[in-house]
Amino acid sequence: MARRVDRRERRELLADALMRLAAARGLEAVSLRHVAAEAGVSTGMVQHYFRTKDEMMVFALGMVMDRIRRRSQAVAAPAAPRELVRGLLLQVLPLDETRRLENHVVLAFLAYAAVKPSLASGLREAAAQMRGFLAEQLRAAGVDGVDPEQGAAGLLALVDGLGLQVLSQQYAAEDAAAALDAQLVLLFGRP
Amino acid sequence: MARRVDRRERRELLADALMRLAAARGLEAVSLRHVAAEAGVSTGMVQHYFRTKDEMMVFALGMVMDRIRRRSQAVAAPAAPRELVRGLLLQVLPLDETRRLENHVVLAFLAYAAVKPSLASGLREAAAQMRGFLAEQLRAAGVDGVDPEQGAAGLLALVDGLGLQVLSQQYAAEDAAAALDAQLVLLFGRP
Repeated sequence: MARRVDRRERRELLADALMRLAAARGLEAVSLRHVAAEAGVSTGMVQHYFRTKDEMMVFALGMVMDRIRRRSQAVAAPAAPRELVRGLLLQVLPLDETRRLENHVVLAFLAYAAVKPSLASGLREAAAQMRGFLAEQLRAAGVDGVDPEQGAAGLLALVDGLGLQVLSQQYAAEDAAAALDAQLVLLFGRP
Repeated sequence: MARRVDRRERRELLADALMRLAAARGLEAVSLRHVAAEAGVSTGMVQHYFRTKDEMMVFALGMVMDRIRRRSQAVAAPAAPRELVRGLLLQVLPLDETRRLENHVVLAFLAYAAVKPSLASGLREAAAQMRGFLAEQLRAAGVDGVDPEQGAAGLLALVDGLGLQVLSQQYAAEDAAAALDAQLVLLFGRP
């Protein structure tokens, strides 16, 4: 990290190190010192960018959300509502190594937020935005078997639940993608 | 715990103490010593019943699964498939204090199993059983908009996801129950 990089980029490098550690052994045991070792920098350097582990977790979570958003926008630029929804939600499911890492961070963060209410607000906003986007697409597609807000809530919950099950090895990643498609058929009808 | 109780009952008392601690501050920080203090017994006594924290977590998880099963059987004895499914899944959602505690344990356990594959097998079996039961009910009800296995997987994922969102304060418990009902309408039609 000796070359000239901006603050955001350095923080992302450290957050990426945190994500690798979270995926390998969970967040409980991880300290700023471990992150420093994983990123190949000093603990003081880490502390320069993040004062606490909580601060780093909040940053990492925001980074994951941004990446998911950017990937799904790249995939589904001029698409119909159904494809927009599918494109976004496939970016959330842990279907490859990048998304597995992201899911680990989100899951660890959720488990943490369940006992640290102060961390929950950023999460709540991100989830509400996602639900709003999904509801808009259901409305645009004229889906009529379900109230769009509830359909959107169900879709997001289904994908969160599938992610949880894949990560904890209760369910295979391929089956998770198929279960999402089955839900899209229930909502939008056969493609 | 001085009166004559059997081994199972004592283990349940300790596992209940673990659940209260998990709900209050997560599982990361919890040790056998903390469980002993919460249950009002000595650490040696805890160690007599559980050699490790992992062993206690596996036991607590099994206990939660048993209780959910017993409650949903009590609720829905001679009922139609739709009511059986709803009765079971409402017992899983964190809609009261008991179920909140249970959800905390399951969530903490899932986050833990995501990085400890050796713990995942008991979980996988319990989830597969639940999915099998749900698929059977979808088949019995003649649900035809979706393959019963995939519909069952989607339902379980939706409820797992809703539980996760309620616990991490992303979503209100009442809204979660409504989102489940909306999914039942998608699957079974209007009641």
